[in-house]
Amino acid sequence: MEDKAEIQEAIQIQGEVVRKLKSEKASKEQIDEEVSKLLQLKARIGGDDGKHQFVLKTAKGTRDYNPKQMAIREKVFNTITGCFKRHGAETIDTPVFELKETLTGKYGEDSKLIYDLKDQGGELLSLRYDLTVPFARYLAMNKITNIKRYHIAKVYRRDNPAMTRGRYREFYQCDFDIAGQYDGMIPDAECLKIVHEILSELDLGDFRIKVNDRRILDGMFAVCGVPDDKFRTICSTVDKLDKMPWEDVRKEMVTEKGLSEEAADRIGEYVSLQGGMELAERLLQDQRMSQSKQACAGLSDIKLLFSYLQLFQVTDKVVFDLSLARGLDYYTGIIYEAVLTQAGVALGSTEAQNGSGAEESVSVGSVAGGGRYDGLVGMFDPKGRKVPCVGVSIGIERIFSIMEQKAEASAQKVRTTEVQVMVASAQKNLLEERLKLLTELWNAGIKAEVMYKKNPKLLSQLQHCEDSGIPLVAILGEQELKDGVVKLRVVATREEVDMSRADLMDEIRRRTSEA
Amino acid sequence: MEDKAEIQEAIQIQGEVVRKLKSEKASKEQIDEEVSKLLQLKARIGGDDGKHQFVLKTAKGTRDYNPKQMAIREKVFNTITGCFKRHGAETIDTPVFELKETLTGKYGEDSKLIYDLKDQGGELLSLRYDLTVPFARYLAMNKITNIKRYHIAKVYRRDNPAMTRGRYREFYQCDFDIAGQYDGMIPDAECLKIVHEILSELDLGDFRIKVNDRRILDGMFAVCGVPDDKFRTICSTVDKLDKMPWEDVRKEMVTEKGLSEEAADRIGEYVSLQGGMELAERLLQDQRMSQSKQACAGLSDIKLLFSYLQLFQVTDKVVFDLSLARGLDYYTGIIYEAVLTQAGVALGSTEAQNGSGAEESVSVGSVAGGGRYDGLVGMFDPKGRKVPCVGVSIGIERIFSIMEQKAEASAQKVRTTEVQVMVASAQKNLLEERLKLLTELWNAGIKAEVMYKKNPKLLSQLQHCEDSGIPLVAILGEQELKDGVVKLRVVATREEVDMSRADLMDEIRRRTSEA
Repeated sequence: MEDKAEIQEAIQIQGEVVRKLKSEKASKEQIDEEVSKLLQLKARIGGDDGKHQFVLKTAKGTRDYNPKQMAIREKVFNTITGCFKRHGAETIDTPVFELKETLTGKYGEDSKLIYDLKDQGGELLSLRYDLTVPFARYLAMNKITNIKRYHIAKVYRRDNPAMTRGRYREFYQCDFDIAGQYDGMIPDAECLKIVHEILSELDLGDFRIKVNDRRILDGMFAVCGVPDDKFRTICSTVDKLDKMPWEDVRKEMVTEKGLSEEAADRIGEYVSLQGGMELAERLLQDQRMSQSKQACAGLSDIKLLFSYLQLFQVTDKVVFDLSLARGLDYYTGIIYEAVLTQAGVALGSTEAQNGSGAEESVSVGSVAGGGRYDGLVGMFDPKGRKVPCVGVSIGIERIFSIMEQKAEASAQKVRTTEVQVMVASAQKNLLEERLKLLTELWNAGIKAEVMYKKNPKLLSQLQHCEDSGIPLVAILGEQELKDGVVKLRVVATREEVDMSRADLMDEIRRRTSEA
Repeated sequence: MEDKAEIQEAIQIQGEVVRKLKSEKASKEQIDEEVSKLLQLKARIGGDDGKHQFVLKTAKGTRDYNPKQMAIREKVFNTITGCFKRHGAETIDTPVFELKETLTGKYGEDSKLIYDLKDQGGELLSLRYDLTVPFARYLAMNKITNIKRYHIAKVYRRDNPAMTRGRYREFYQCDFDIAGQYDGMIPDAECLKIVHEILSELDLGDFRIKVNDRRILDGMFAVCGVPDDKFRTICSTVDKLDKMPWEDVRKEMVTEKGLSEEAADRIGEYVSLQGGMELAERLLQDQRMSQSKQACAGLSDIKLLFSYLQLFQVTDKVVFDLSLARGLDYYTGIIYEAVLTQAGVALGSTEAQNGSGAEESVSVGSVAGGGRYDGLVGMFDPKGRKVPCVGVSIGIERIFSIMEQKAEASAQKVRTTEVQVMVASAQKNLLEERLKLLTELWNAGIKAEVMYKKNPKLLSQLQHCEDSGIPLVAILGEQELKDGVVKLRVVATREEVDMSRADLMDEIRRRTSEA
């Protein structure tokens, strides 16, 4: 029997040899020879008594959800879905993969993170990268010009996973979008109201919702003297302000992106500004800013937005922040992002212990984002007909992480089933009687179970109830059968009452109705 | 402007030229030249004023779910999840893709239908083909030896889609499985009870659940004189009995598979048998069948199964059917399949109109299947430790199709939102007042919406309520504001009542509590 670790190491070394030869552009013969040695090594490790050795793991950046995690996930989804429904949204679903060309040209630099399917003959397909582009495709394809819809589904990004911080390659997005030609900023304000409601209801600690507008950013770049062709690249540098100090951002602008020092300093003044409606008013009077029509349009909309946010009673958490940029190409107007101000820090500090840098721990808190994208649907329409859209996406994985930590820390047990009663017996040979009662309970709509043993011990039946939080036990014995009754036991108090089968169902329902 | 169809045709012809040259192993130069012509043609069709021409469709064999379909889907899922929870199941989730090797060797011939992801560097991945193999991987990976879990998720098969009949390349499975070493046939019987409950509750018309056992099939083949190495292939021919008459099956066995006529005829006698517990008893006495230990073990288990099915009150729909084979490699004991006996026919006849053959329309009715697979988890365990499992999978797409047809046929409208009340106004300049009341309603947990217009017409607001089934309208006007009341209008009856805001919430809840 060969030592597996030794071969593994040999494979690694041989792999290096092959890579080196390739990088040195060695002769084909020479490379082929070394590759064949590598394959022989790999074959040796595969053969274990002829049995294939499985790697027991999930794909990189993905994870299973165990029952406890699913119980938490269900709770979070119920809160989010409840909010979306309260706001009158319908829901749709789209396939997990799209034609590759549907996704092409929508994500800018991030396109390299798209998962492609293997060409097995037929169409070229890619896994969806978000839910927004499939939504736009859906609208154009079905010629829908107005809809308010939510969509909760998994999306896929070949990103560098950081799973302890809730960053995965497969992750859920919970999207709410309003499509249609409406009076300005009412749907936009509703999206922020929704973020406010969900984050408050989930009770994740304090949060802020930063708001800005693509037109304000562009106008600001113009009046600060950024050349037109540098808007996008300077914008992506500004986007780093939540991760690095202004000095470093300024340096990148000047030395890497070739911006003049004066322009950079002018930007620096603006992006340090934060406020509310009064800041928008002030900037509308600002000598430089007011020269840009675009910026003024954005600033007026921010003012209008804040007036609706006041009616919606959410201005306590919303900040107009000129440093907010957001990466995606398709935004055309207002943009926003919600950050947890407390939990972010908490997560960050455990991260720091795990050795990951401060650079990452600061941005941990972002849990929702979105904006207005008035041009995306038009990209799919043969005649380019536009459908104005605004939406928000809740980044649920990070929220799961926090909820899981809270559940771990809390004394309260997370139940993974909803069983109301276990049908048990203290005596032997009563399997048939247990199954009969179980059937009656199921048929009456009661959640019930039984141990799959002919003669289980009463203690192990009670232990199972303790373990999985089942509150009641219906106990059958010779005497109960003779008397035509069932003994109902309350697990928590050990109280026991005999009752007729006719009364049993109602009593179980009564005692578990709060659950 | 060039004619697109003409270029398309030219592309096709040019494609043929290239393929022909390649097949004739023409010179590289010659092939390259023709390929370059082909690319030029393709470029011409792509260039429409420099704009890319999108194909507006979903990938082959997939579909979007619109809000109406989602409403039906949610209802079906609620019924199924409700049943799984009533039986005390937990739930888990696994990633949509697995390491390719996790799926290798589990599906026999069907492996060719697995979707692979493109090798973009890193691990080789495949989309899951079912939920059973990921479940077994999950158990082995986490060393779980007993669990009762359900899993509702999409699976992927590069099959020939037949979407009108509910056969897709992306489709939902609803799986319920019981893993663990338990006393014989109790979990197996519960799986059948679950199928019975779900199909009854969904009210899809009459159905039958066919039951057989892999060991009975293997024993039958042995005593009928089928050579050991032909068990699998003869089994897959038997599996076709629900699609073609015995004569054709016999012919395939004898002429294609080389089975002796006597053996085929002996099999023919057995596979025509259907019954219940008494058939199992008879076969246990059967001179030939009783020679097989395997068959006897299977028959005894069928007897035991039926005794539990009697207690579960489901024998009315369950048939012991020796012709039931089922394709998947991993089954080791009892197998079953549920067929709709009415809806199957109905769907079949619309199919026939669409030109698809009778061969397909007969098998339309299968909506659930499963069985015992005691060896699968051991395939993933490094030490081969077995975890006995039995489970059932509900084939939901076909059920959706039927429910959709029923909804179409029914006069009752399918609501796609749950909005209880619309906040409306008959007068101008009351947007702020509408948004204030809306906020109060949302904050009180009431599902409410408003039209996103500054001054919408009352008629269009009422029309929206009619269209989307919103039962109540809260109307604000100058007079109501002055009096501190709201006018609540019942859409169906046009009845209107003025009430204080304090009473409004309770009144809305009261009037929509049945919904």
